[in-house]
Amino acid sequence: MSLFKKRIYADWAATTPVHPRVLRAMKRARKAWANPSAIHAEGVEAKRALESARSKCARVIGAKPEEIYFTSGGTEANCTIIQGVLRTRLEKGIKDVHVVSSSIEHSSIIETLELFAEHGVKVTYVDPDKNGIVQADDVIKAITPATALVTVMYANNEIGTIQPVSKIGAGIRKIRAEKIGGSAGDAADFPVFHVDASQAPLWLSCDIEGLRADAMTIDAHKMQGPKGVGALVVRRRVSWEPLMIGGGQERGKRPTTESVELVSGFAEALAIAQEGRGPRAERAARTRDFFFDLISKEFPDVVVNGSREKRLPNNINISVPDLSDPELAVLFMDKEGIACSTKSSCLKGEEDSYVVKALGAADQAPAAASALGNAAWRAKNTLRFSFAPDASRRDVLIIAEALKKLRMLI
Amino acid sequence: MSLFKKRIYADWAATTPVHPRVLRAMKRARKAWANPSAIHAEGVEAKRALESARSKCARVIGAKPEEIYFTSGGTEANCTIIQGVLRTRLEKGIKDVHVVSSSIEHSSIIETLELFAEHGVKVTYVDPDKNGIVQADDVIKAITPATALVTVMYANNEIGTIQPVSKIGAGIRKIRAEKIGGSAGDAADFPVFHVDASQAPLWLSCDIEGLRADAMTIDAHKMQGPKGVGALVVRRRVSWEPLMIGGGQERGKRPTTESVELVSGFAEALAIAQEGRGPRAERAARTRDFFFDLISKEFPDVVVNGSREKRLPNNINISVPDLSDPELAVLFMDKEGIACSTKSSCLKGEEDSYVVKALGAADQAPAAASALGNAAWRAKNTLRFSFAPDASRRDVLIIAEALKKLRMLI
Repeated sequence: MSLFKKRIYADWAATTPVHPRVLRAMKRARKAWANPSAIHAEGVEAKRALESARSKCARVIGAKPEEIYFTSGGTEANCTIIQGVLRTRLEKGIKDVHVVSSSIEHSSIIETLELFAEHGVKVTYVDPDKNGIVQADDVIKAITPATALVTVMYANNEIGTIQPVSKIGAGIRKIRAEKIGGSAGDAADFPVFHVDASQAPLWLSCDIEGLRADAMTIDAHKMQGPKGVGALVVRRRVSWEPLMIGGGQERGKRPTTESVELVSGFAEALAIAQEGRGPRAERAARTRDFFFDLISKEFPDVVVNGSREKRLPNNINISVPDLSDPELAVLFMDKEGIACSTKSSCLKGEEDSYVVKALGAADQAPAAASALGNAAWRAKNTLRFSFAPDASRRDVLIIAEALKKLRMLI
Repeated sequence: MSLFKKRIYADWAATTPVHPRVLRAMKRARKAWANPSAIHAEGVEAKRALESARSKCARVIGAKPEEIYFTSGGTEANCTIIQGVLRTRLEKGIKDVHVVSSSIEHSSIIETLELFAEHGVKVTYVDPDKNGIVQADDVIKAITPATALVTVMYANNEIGTIQPVSKIGAGIRKIRAEKIGGSAGDAADFPVFHVDASQAPLWLSCDIEGLRADAMTIDAHKMQGPKGVGALVVRRRVSWEPLMIGGGQERGKRPTTESVELVSGFAEALAIAQEGRGPRAERAARTRDFFFDLISKEFPDVVVNGSREKRLPNNINISVPDLSDPELAVLFMDKEGIACSTKSSCLKGEEDSYVVKALGAADQAPAAASALGNAAWRAKNTLRFSFAPDASRRDVLIIAEALKKLRMLI
């Protein structure tokens, strides 16, 4: 770590350092190393530690312990719930299956939906407005009697905008209530509402009932937990097929010997994230707003991507005129001691940000964009800074200075 | 750990304690905590550590680094290759798809195959002989022009018997050579030969070329590595579809931010397992044979499940007359300070061992089995001891003493 001591790591949306309390929890859990499915003393100790971590998660997010399924991360949780709900319908012989999502979801959502689309599932991608917000009414209007799943993320991984998930959830419950009034059958989980909350726990309440969600994805490494563990939370009323089979673990829904160490780290990270989020978010928002004010003053031609207020308090996403190669810009910032990024780390190198493209399409083009059109221009010139909770105004000033230098070079 | 200081942990087939050198490698890797897909200095450091771990694995098993795909464990690797190969065929519109496997594979293999069988894929399960060995000729004879996949485990997780995988692999290569002589097309990977080597690395050579395998599963926690990480090794010639999509990681075949810490632990565990396996296996085999000799003398009515020689050097699997409830027996042994098991931890509580059943069916029934028939009797009365590499004759004597006590009670 000493190597990066003086550096500014502003890529928390890509991954976060593990919290010291999480490391300690994992070290404690290491003594419960046996197989939790074994019935001898060592196995029982592991099982107890596993279930204690599960209960802790359940308490923090207001779910029942048996509604928590540990996975290898957010991507697996996203892939699991999509295929899980859709396959349940398809294998019943239902031909007409529809999904509502947004055009700014994480690639694991969109690519998995596209795979099902190739096999005849219809998908409606609701576009965000120019502020990068998906309107709840647009989502609700897109629901048809064939809609099996609605999946909308809580906070965007690139532009940090916060989506009105509880409003969407409330709308879905209203539809469900009307449907139950009419007929029975699958109405209890029609349509299933899934929220990808991977970017949320450090900053926003993840109470599943508050979000009116039926299923939720959480990823440890985005909230100061270890990499290699996440959770899919699914309410009991939902019918779904597992992604993998071959063992009784996680109530038959997710085979593999459980890592008590990783799961304990996940639980501790989730608890720390949620309990400290109020003051953490306030402090980060002050730094973020200071950055935005500075940008408006110093670089009036720089465009902020997404709402300035309805976004994660640590997220800055801007399009800089004449950047042309944002990867080179990231390398320049890197040399200046700042770790930032251009877009989602889950996108391949050559792809522009489809998230920024989607909101750029809804917005007016600035002068610099004239030739390319706003959507393509914005997506091509994107820089993302996602701050640590303790980022300071000094950090912001250093970044602004580096941006100034960069713009003199290009 | 002090709690179990004097205990005998004889459940290494279920999971193993992490090797101190593995713990140190993981601690070192912890400083490369950033996202390996990021292009800033922290990301580059993580990427370098990730690729160095991958190269280390590749060297140890004689594969190319780009043939190694890190997963969350053995189960995911098994599920991935089965669906990966079969979906590749099915999505080309090929209707007639066949798989050859054995009736003693891990549940993640058999249950995944059964899922495809429900959708029209034909599966031939080759039975083992009375020694728990699947005959290579039987496997080769079962191959038809429609066979897309042959999957046979290297060493059985319950009875430890070692399967003739390199002989099967050689037979498949012969068929492939003949087919290429005749026609082109998919012949280069027809049929794909997958080996589940989860139980093998501590004891047997896992050189992939030596095994004549096209794909191989390895699981870290069975070889003194951490839980939550495994690898699927797939030779370049094989066409396969990923289980999850949504990110460019692992060459697009396995999305999710990679855990450099887990992967480094995996690589170190694999290296330690393979480099020390000769003396480790010899020592363990002496203890195992001492156990077998003792059993023959002290409990002549106890049946050893599987070949006494062609088995993992640390595996003991016996059927004890009048045991009737092996779970109670495990609890009794537990009270005597011995951690052992009845069968695979991946089986649900109420199921008898299908592995022991399969070989019991091929063997003669002892007197004790008369009422139930040999297969059911053997499966109902099973105890498995899987020793630590440094298990001693003293441990064996303590176990024999406990067995004697147990038999006096029942």
